[in-house]
Amino acid sequence: MGREPLGRERRAAEPADVGEIPATMRALRKIAPEPGARLLEVPSPKPGPGEILVRVDAASICGTDLHIYDWDSWASNRIRTLPMTFGHEVAGHVAAIGPEVHHLRPGAFVSLEGHVFCGFCPTCRRGRFHICEHLKILGVDFDGGFADYVVIPERNAWEVDPRIAPDVASIHDPFGNAVHTAFIGGGADNIVGSVVVVLGCGPIGLFAVGICRAAGARLVAAVEPNEFRRDLAKKMGADVLIDPTKEDPVAAVETLTGGHGAEVVLEISGVPKAIDQGTRMLAPGGRMALLGLPKGPVELDLTDQVIFKEARLFGVTGRELFRTWELTTTLIATGMVDVNPVITHRFPLGRFEEAFEAMSSGRSAKVLLLPRSPSASG
Amino acid sequence: MGREPLGRERRAAEPADVGEIPATMRALRKIAPEPGARLLEVPSPKPGPGEILVRVDAASICGTDLHIYDWDSWASNRIRTLPMTFGHEVAGHVAAIGPEVHHLRPGAFVSLEGHVFCGFCPTCRRGRFHICEHLKILGVDFDGGFADYVVIPERNAWEVDPRIAPDVASIHDPFGNAVHTAFIGGGADNIVGSVVVVLGCGPIGLFAVGICRAAGARLVAAVEPNEFRRDLAKKMGADVLIDPTKEDPVAAVETLTGGHGAEVVLEISGVPKAIDQGTRMLAPGGRMALLGLPKGPVELDLTDQVIFKEARLFGVTGRELFRTWELTTTLIATGMVDVNPVITHRFPLGRFEEAFEAMSSGRSAKVLLLPRSPSASG
Amino acid sequence: MGREPLGRERRAAEPADVGEIPATMRALRKIAPEPGARLLEVPSPKPGPGEILVRVDAASICGTDLHIYDWDSWASNRIRTLPMTFGHEVAGHVAAIGPEVHHLRPGAFVSLEGHVFCGFCPTCRRGRFHICEHLKILGVDFDGGFADYVVIPERNAWEVDPRIAPDVASIHDPFGNAVHTAFIGGGADNIVGSVVVVLGCGPIGLFAVGICRAAGARLVAAVEPNEFRRDLAKKMGADVLIDPTKEDPVAAVETLTGGHGAEVVLEISGVPKAIDQGTRMLAPGGRMALLGLPKGPVELDLTDQVIFKEARLFGVTGRELFRTWELTTTLIATGMVDVNPVITHRFPLGRFEEAFEAMSSGRSAKVLLLPRSPSASG
Amino acid sequence: MGREPLGRERRAAEPADVGEIPATMRALRKIAPEPGARLLEVPSPKPGPGEILVRVDAASICGTDLHIYDWDSWASNRIRTLPMTFGHEVAGHVAAIGPEVHHLRPGAFVSLEGHVFCGFCPTCRRGRFHICEHLKILGVDFDGGFADYVVIPERNAWEVDPRIAPDVASIHDPFGNAVHTAFIGGGADNIVGSVVVVLGCGPIGLFAVGICRAAGARLVAAVEPNEFRRDLAKKMGADVLIDPTKEDPVAAVETLTGGHGAEVVLEISGVPKAIDQGTRMLAPGGRMALLGLPKGPVELDLTDQVIFKEARLFGVTGRELFRTWELTTTLIATGMVDVNPVITHRFPLGRFEEAFEAMSSGRSAKVLLLPRSPSASG
Repeated sequence: MGREPLGRERRAAEPADVGEIPATMRALRKIAPEPGARLLEVPSPKPGPGEILVRVDAASICGTDLHIYDWDSWASNRIRTLPMTFGHEVAGHVAAIGPEVHHLRPGAFVSLEGHVFCGFCPTCRRGRFHICEHLKILGVDFDGGFADYVVIPERNAWEVDPRIAPDVASIHDPFGNAVHTAFIGGGADNIVGSVVVVLGCGPIGLFAVGICRAAGARLVAAVEPNEFRRDLAKKMGADVLIDPTKEDPVAAVETLTGGHGAEVVLEISGVPKAIDQGTRMLAPGGRMALLGLPKGPVELDLTDQVIFKEARLFGVTGRELFRTWELTTTLIATGMVDVNPVITHRFPLGRFEEAFEAMSSGRSAKVLLLPRSPSASG
Repeated sequence: MGREPLGRERRAAEPADVGEIPATMRALRKIAPEPGARLLEVPSPKPGPGEILVRVDAASICGTDLHIYDWDSWASNRIRTLPMTFGHEVAGHVAAIGPEVHHLRPGAFVSLEGHVFCGFCPTCRRGRFHICEHLKILGVDFDGGFADYVVIPERNAWEVDPRIAPDVASIHDPFGNAVHTAFIGGGADNIVGSVVVVLGCGPIGLFAVGICRAAGARLVAAVEPNEFRRDLAKKMGADVLIDPTKEDPVAAVETLTGGHGAEVVLEISGVPKAIDQGTRMLAPGGRMALLGLPKGPVELDLTDQVIFKEARLFGVTGRELFRTWELTTTLIATGMVDVNPVITHRFPLGRFEEAFEAMSSGRSAKVLLLPRSPSASG
Repeated sequence: MGREPLGRERRAAEPADVGEIPATMRALRKIAPEPGARLLEVPSPKPGPGEILVRVDAASICGTDLHIYDWDSWASNRIRTLPMTFGHEVAGHVAAIGPEVHHLRPGAFVSLEGHVFCGFCPTCRRGRFHICEHLKILGVDFDGGFADYVVIPERNAWEVDPRIAPDVASIHDPFGNAVHTAFIGGGADNIVGSVVVVLGCGPIGLFAVGICRAAGARLVAAVEPNEFRRDLAKKMGADVLIDPTKEDPVAAVETLTGGHGAEVVLEISGVPKAIDQGTRMLAPGGRMALLGLPKGPVELDLTDQVIFKEARLFGVTGRELFRTWELTTTLIATGMVDVNPVITHRFPLGRFEEAFEAMSSGRSAKVLLLPRSPSASG
Repeated sequence: MGREPLGRERRAAEPADVGEIPATMRALRKIAPEPGARLLEVPSPKPGPGEILVRVDAASICGTDLHIYDWDSWASNRIRTLPMTFGHEVAGHVAAIGPEVHHLRPGAFVSLEGHVFCGFCPTCRRGRFHICEHLKILGVDFDGGFADYVVIPERNAWEVDPRIAPDVASIHDPFGNAVHTAFIGGGADNIVGSVVVVLGCGPIGLFAVGICRAAGARLVAAVEPNEFRRDLAKKMGADVLIDPTKEDPVAAVETLTGGHGAEVVLEISGVPKAIDQGTRMLAPGGRMALLGLPKGPVELDLTDQVIFKEARLFGVTGRELFRTWELTTTLIATGMVDVNPVITHRFPLGRFEEAFEAMSSGRSAKVLLLPRSPSASG
C-alpha cells in the first residue's frame, strides 16, 4: 500500500449492517486451571449502561494469550476467575449499544482498547489512564474477544479508518504497544536522526522497526536470534540485523556507531541478558524503553552503564489512551508502515488449535483468528 | 540518492590537499551604501587564536544577501561597517589554522555556522548560543564567504559527512533553519502523524516540506503563490499545494482536515496576512513556528485564534548549535531528504551578477556561487 | 495557615448529612437579554445518568459572571438560551446521585470543574479535555451554581481536601486558571529560579503571584494600575509592584533585570497594550502565557520581540483536567499559597446585588456568594 | 538569611586586589599509591591560553576526595598520574589570566566547574558538555584545588553572586549536583506538588532536601540511618525522617501516601538495597533519579516496579553547564535554600588531617579547607 494522504482528519466508514444477534454464540473459553481451551456455545452477552456489543471480525493472538492457553505460572497467578473467554486484540462491528451510549452507533467498525480504567484514581486524574490503579483488562479480568461477540465500554472503542483492511484492524493493540515504546519519554524527537536498536523481534518488535523507520531514524538495528523473524525485520525496514547467538550485540553496535553507541534502545525481548546488553550499547545520554517482561530480577551495572552515562530507562506498558491510537491510525492508514509482513497466519475461530500451534512454532509473527471466515490461509 | 545507512556515527573525509595560500584573493565586497557589489582583489586573511582559514568551495546566496546587494532599508540599518565582504552560507576546506586550534586540521572539509557567540552571557550559559546577547554574524558583522578564503572560529566549523556532495555542502545553514523551524518547541513529536502546513516555499520552506515528510507527517500542505516554487514543493514531497491567490488557505486547510485544522503550521513567508491565516488554520492545541520576518507590526486575533484554542507560537531564528547540525547531516547524508531539486542555479564567483539576477527572478530557489569553478550551469 | 504536610495522598472528609432536597429552590437567573438578574424560586433539578446533584455551599463570582449580569456585547453574543441560572465557580456537598454514578456518594464535599467535555472528539482523545471541540460550560451553556442546588456530571466533581475551608473551596476554579497559566508550556521548570512578571492583578493574577512564589521564582513583579490590587499583590508575595500609569513597565523590568528581561511573563489583563509590553519585556528565549482576553485584534512586533528573541507565546484557557486540580489542592491545602487575602467579600445569596456591586467597585478581588449563610461580611 | 530579591540578573562583585603571585605555593598532593597525602611547597602554576589562575579561598572536601585520600580500590583504578594535587570543589579570586581570556579579569570572585570538556565530540555538540566523551576532571585528571593556587579554563569559572559568603562559595559544585538530581528528566515540574523521597543524606542529599522544599514539593521524606544527618535533614526542611535501620522505608512511604507511593525518588546513597527500595516506593508513573554510585551490580524487579508502573529511571552525574549553575546561584543567593546547616566544619589548609578525620567521623556533612585562614572552627 503506497502513501495516501488523509483527505479528512477522521473519516469514518459507512455503518455496516450487522444483522440480528443470535441468542447464543461461540466463545473460546478457559474452563479449568490446566493447558488448553474449549470452544463453547454460550449465551450472547448484552451491553450495560455505557457499553457496546461488538461482533468480532478479527481477533489476534498475543503472547499473553499463549500464556493463558498453556496455563503457565504467570497465567495461574494472574487469572482470577474461571471459566473465562480470553483474547484482547479485537476488531469488529458494533452490533448493539447499551443505554448511555452517545457516540457510537450500530454498524460502526471499531478496534478495541482492552485496558478498562476507572477515571477517578489519582493516576487517571493525571491523564495516565493506561496505568489506572484499578485497571481491568479485556480477556484477562473479564470475558474477551475470542468469540462471536464481546462487550466493552463505549469509550474503549476506536473507530477504524476505512482504509485499514478489516482483517488487520485487530493489530491496533500490539502496534500501539510498539508506538508507545518507540515514542515514550520525549517522543519522536528521540527517533528522528538517531541510531535505534530494537531488542527482540516478535510482532511488537517488528512493528517498532517499521515505526522507527517511518519516524526518521538514522539507522535501525534489529537484534533477534530467530532467523525467520530477522527476515521479517528486514522486510519491516531494519538496516542491520544482528543474531545475538552469533555475535555480541554490544560489540556490533559499537562498531556500527564508530564507538559512540545507540541513542535509543527499545527492549522488547524481556530477556535479562538483553536488558543488560541494552544498557551497555547506549550512547552517553541515551534512552532505553523497557517493554519486555523479564521473569525474575535483573542485574544491571548502574554505575557505569546508567549513572555516568546519564542514561534514561523508561518502563512501558500498554498504550496511551488515546494519543497512541491516533498515531497508530495514521501510521497504518497512510501506508507509512506496512504491517502485512508481520501478519503471517489467519485461521477461522474453529481452527484455534492450529492457530496456537502456529504461535508456538517459531515460524510465525502475528496470528489472526477470524470468527466470520469459513476458511483460512496458513 | 537512495537511503544509505551510516556505517559510523561521525565519519570524516580524508583531508584534502588545499595547496598554498596566495597573498591576495578575490572578495565580493559591499563598498558603498548603495545597490550592487564589487569583486575586488584583497589581501588573504589570516586566522587568529582559535580561528581557522577556510578555502571556499561553495557559498550559497540567502535572502539576506539579496537585501545587502540591493541595499534596502533593512540592510542600511543593519550593516554597520563598510567595506565588507558578505555571504554566510559557506562550505570549504580548512586551508590554515591559527594558534589554539585543537580539533580541525588543514584539509578538513567543513560547512560554517555563521552565528559567532560569546559563550558567557546568560543566554549562552543556558546553552542557547544561537541567540547569544552579543551575537556576531558572518558576512553581516564581519567579512563573509563570497570570496576565495574566509576566517571563522574553529568551533563554528562543522565537518561535512563525505557522502554529501561538496558543491551542496553550503546549504547546511538554510537547511538547518528549516530543521530548527520544524522541530522547535517539542521536537519531532509534533510532526509525526500530524497535518503540517508550510507557509511560503522559498528554499527554507522547500527544505521544511522535505523534512516534515521524512519525519513522518501525516500530510504536508504547501502554501505558495509562485507556481515555479509550488512545483518544487511537490518535488520535495508536499501532498497538497495551495495557491493563496486562487483559494483561501484557511478554508482549504479546513476542508482538508474535516474542520479540525492543522496541528502544526510553519510560517516561513514573513507576510503579515499569512501569519494571521496561520493562526486561523491551527487546530485546538496547535503549534506555529514563526521564522519569516514581517516588516512591520502584525495584527492577530489572539482571543479566538490563540487563547481559546490554546495555540502555541514559537519564534525561530538561526539554528541550534549544534543539535540542528547533527540532524541536518543525517537528513541529507542518508538521503532522507533529497535537496537537489532546491538547488536551481550554480555560478562561478565571477558571474555573481547573473547569480543575483537569478535570485530575483522568481524562477529560482537556492543559487550557489562556486569560487573554484571555471564555468557554470543555470 | 502554616505548612502542613499531607499525611495521605487523597484524604477525603467524612461525608456530611445533607438532609432532604426540597421540591423548589432559589436560583439567580438571567431571564431577559438586559442588565441584571432575578432570584427566583424554581423546581430543584434532578441528576440524570452519570450526574450528581450538589447542594451549593459557596459560589464565587467570576469576571464572566459580571459580563452576564451587565449583559455586555460578549454576553449577548455568547449566551444562547434564556432564562438561565449562571455561576460556575462552585463548591458544595453531593445531595443526590443519578444512575451510573460509581465513585461519589451523598455527603461528599466537592468543588466543580465547569468545563463539560465530550471525551470523543480528536482533542479529547489527545487528553486535552479542557479544549474539547464540543465543550459546554456550567452557568454559560447550562444552568449554573448561583442557586441552592446544581447538577453536574460526576466526573466534573473534585473531592475537596478537608483542610481547605468550605467557604473558600469554590476558588479551585480561578486558582486552577492561575496554576495552568503559570505552568503551561514546560511547567514549573520555567518558574523556579526565574524572573516572572504578572500583568494584571485581578483574582487570577493575584493567585498567580502566590503560585510563582511557592514554585521558587527568583523575583515576582506585579504590574497593576489599581492600588487596592497592588496592595493585595504585595500580600500574595510580589517582590516588586509596578503601576503602569506611573512608570513604563518595560523599562522597569529592564532595570530590574540588568537589561536582560524577564524569563516568564503571565498576561492576565487582556489589555492589548499590556500584551505588546509583555513581549517587549521578555528575555531572549522567554515565555509568555496569554490568559487575559483582549476585545479586538492585537498588534505585535513579531520580528524583534518574538522571532529574533525566540520567544514563545502560549494561549491558555481553563484548566487541565485534572492535573491542574491536583496541584491546586496541594498548593492550597498545604498552605503553600494562602488564598485568604484574595477573598475580599462574602455575601448570602439573597444579597447578590451588593455582591455584584462589590465586584464592580475596584476595591475587591474575589467575592463569594454563600447560599446557606444567613448573614455576611463585607 | 531571609529572601532578598535580585536587583540585577547577574551582579558581579567589585574586583578584589589579589596581590602578587609567589613563586611557590602549598599544595596537598597525593604522591604515592597509598593512603594519606602530603602538603608540599611546589612552583605556582601559570595559566596557558584560555586559562586563568585562581587564588583559592575555599575548597570543600567531597566523598571522592576521601576515596583518593584513603586510596581505596576506586581511587587506585581511576587516578592515572601521581603525584597530583587533588580537590575539585573550589572558590577563589582570579589572580592572573592567560592569553585568549576575554571575559574574566583579575580580582573576580569565582567558583569552579571541575568538568573540563572538549566541546567537539558528538555529546558536546548536543550541548551535554558534562558527559563529554573526553572529559577531564579537576583534581582527578589534573592538578586540583587543595592548594594556594589552581589553573582552570576560563569557561569553567562562574562568577559568584556577591551576596554569597566567600567561604561557602565552594559548595556550588555539590549543591549543583543536588539541583541537577532534583530537576533532571523534566525539571521542576516533577517536584512542585509532589511527594519526594531523598535516599541518603550526605551533603548532596541534604542540599536536595532544601531544594525540593524551595521548589514546592508537597512533602519531602528523608531516609538516612545516621542520626546526626537526619537532624540536619530536618533543619533543611524534611517533613518526615525515616531511619531505614528501624523501619522499612517502602512501608513508611506507602503509609505516608495512603498507598499511592512517591512521585519522585532521589537516590543519593549508592546503596544497592536503597536503590531497589526506591523503585518499590515509586507511585505509578513515578520518576527516580540515580546519583549515588553503587559499587557492584544492582538487582532490580523491573517487571513489577518499573515496567508495569511505567516508572522512569534517570542516571545523573555532575551538573548541567551552565543551567544548573544559574539555578544554584539563585537558590543560594536569594536565601531560598540556606546551606549553612550543611557546612559543619572549617579548617585551614594546614590542618587537612583533622579535616579528613572529620569527614570520616559520621558527625559531619560538608567540611571546608580555607587556605587563607590562619585559624579554624570545628
